Amino acid sequence: MSSGNLLASIPESLSEELFETLAQADDVKIERIVSASHASPEGFWYDQPQHEFVLLVEGEAVLRLEGEADPRHLKSGDFVNIPARQKHRVESTSTEGKTIWLAIHYGS
Amino acid sequence: MSSGNLLASIPESLSEELFETLAQADDVKIERIVSASHASPEGFWYDQPQHEFVLLVEGEAVLRLEGEADPRHLKSGDFVNIPARQKHRVESTSTEGKTIWLAIHYGS
Repeated sequence: MSSGNLLASIPESLSEELFETLAQADDVKIERIVSASHASPEGFWYDQPQHEFVLLVEGEAVLRLEGEADPRHLKSGDFVNIPARQKHRVESTSTEGKTIWLAIHYGS
Repeated sequence: MSSGNLLASIPESLSEELFETLAQADDVKIERIVSASHASPEGFWYDQPQHEFVLLVEGEAVLRLEGEADPRHLKSGDFVNIPARQKHRVESTSTEGKTIWLAIHYGS
């Protein structure tokens, strides 16, 4: 049985975002993402075949959803349930300390 | 698109644990659970047909898994991926403030 702490085992230095699968079965994948002032590349949009429920566990981030006038400023505890094919991108994450996400990819 | 904050909209008084479905599709259900010093009834064990990935977001809890010698003391950020049919029970939750969980029921 896997277990752990989402706030632990954070590398001091991260040149790229860190993606770790915590659980997976059928069409579901649960992962931890650690960002260190990372953002989606200029002009890049995630366009995913599955829904994504994303929880900001620690830190801060700015999430842009295609079709929305304003980006969303996320803080600890904020979640967004992003439907499949809803294009989105991360405009920025906190430059001070790490930003930790829990993402659940599900459905189709 | 549903969104919110897991730490918000917590009722001041809770006679029973609060279960709220945040997202659902196919065989996946994502829910917030708010406990206020609640515990599983004496002698009761959860015995579920699906896996349950549970994250303790805020507060403290003691989780007992059948077959383990010692209960697990959970704090913020701790997660446990409980396999289907792994019997478990909540021995206690914090008596000071609320305990907030994110639970993902998935697979079969």
